[in-house]
Amino acid sequence: MTPRTQTRERLLHAAAGLFRSQGYASTGLTQVLAEGGAPKGVLYFHFPGGKEQLAAEAVALAGRQLCEMITAVLAAAPDPGTGIGQVAGLFGQALLASGFREGCPVATVALDASAGSEAIRMSCEGAYGSWADALERHFRDHGVAGADARQLATFVLASFEGALLLARVQRDVAPLYAVAATLAGMVDKAVST
Amino acid sequence: MTPRTQTRERLLHAAAGLFRSQGYASTGLTQVLAEGGAPKGVLYFHFPGGKEQLAAEAVALAGRQLCEMITAVLAAAPDPGTGIGQVAGLFGQALLASGFREGCPVATVALDASAGSEAIRMSCEGAYGSWADALERHFRDHGVAGADARQLATFVLASFEGALLLARVQRDVAPLYAVAATLAGMVDKAVST
Repeated sequence: MTPRTQTRERLLHAAAGLFRSQGYASTGLTQVLAEGGAPKGVLYFHFPGGKEQLAAEAVALAGRQLCEMITAVLAAAPDPGTGIGQVAGLFGQALLASGFREGCPVATVALDASAGSEAIRMSCEGAYGSWADALERHFRDHGVAGADARQLATFVLASFEGALLLARVQRDVAPLYAVAATLAGMVDKAVST
Repeated sequence: MTPRTQTRERLLHAAAGLFRSQGYASTGLTQVLAEGGAPKGVLYFHFPGGKEQLAAEAVALAGRQLCEMITAVLAAAPDPGTGIGQVAGLFGQALLASGFREGCPVATVALDASAGSEAIRMSCEGAYGSWADALERHFRDHGVAGADARQLATFVLASFEGALLLARVQRDVAPLYAVAATLAGMVDKAVST
């Protein structure tokens, strides 16, 4: 990577972390520049669309990273139910390590900014869609039929998202693991029938 | 109510609506005063703790209102599974009527503000706890045993929250109704065994 590309990447990663924990409105560009170790004035060179473009790209980056992580964990798991528990374990670790500031990397921006910006909303929708696609592929690979695989993927994604929200608010991973255990049972049943 | 109490109530309702759709950081006190039809200077008379107190109380108010609504809908439903579908229907109507700005009345503030304010976090936790309690009571009343009723209540709450998030992001009630249909099936099974 050229130094310019490296600066752009650093800014995106810094922004993704800040948006994840505190949302769009709370995050100032000065804070992104400070955390990204970049001088003032650089931001609009890399992101001429300003904060909105930065958020849309940061959400897309976070979406790709999590999609790769989910896909890898599920592919390596001995069975789909265990895989669901392992994905929950990764989120649980992130919640604990961050003092419950880091839950879903997209949800905070999705709620506080997607009504006000179509670009950000579409980026959030793309991230959620990619995670649902990864889950659906995984369930299909384990023999769940077409429409059922999509419905199960949407259900698992929604339940995980809500569980991450409750865990952040309660500062406790218990709801995350309780929900994941129920989901693992549902998934095991779906792939074995 | 005295005029003073009425002003306080108007401010709380205006704040609850704004926090619901756009979160804590985006909502300015000037906007709350304008929507609440109250003159400047009145806010700190009613809420000496400023925006943080206003948010904690607005979340608590929204929590009580939704708890009453859920309890009434579930109590009037012919069976628990149908009740779940009717609760989803109310949320679906609110999403459609608001152009997908109004999902869960607590989630946006829960994600964008509860890491930064213990008072707001506790208020969010109290709201979610009261909804889980209402669901648990309802499931117990229909014969689901103690620990199972609590686990089912947490699961239903988490899945609903995630479904509301996906519906807002996708600007589509389909994920909400799909998730509610699966939940209704789970609840029907739990109450009949």
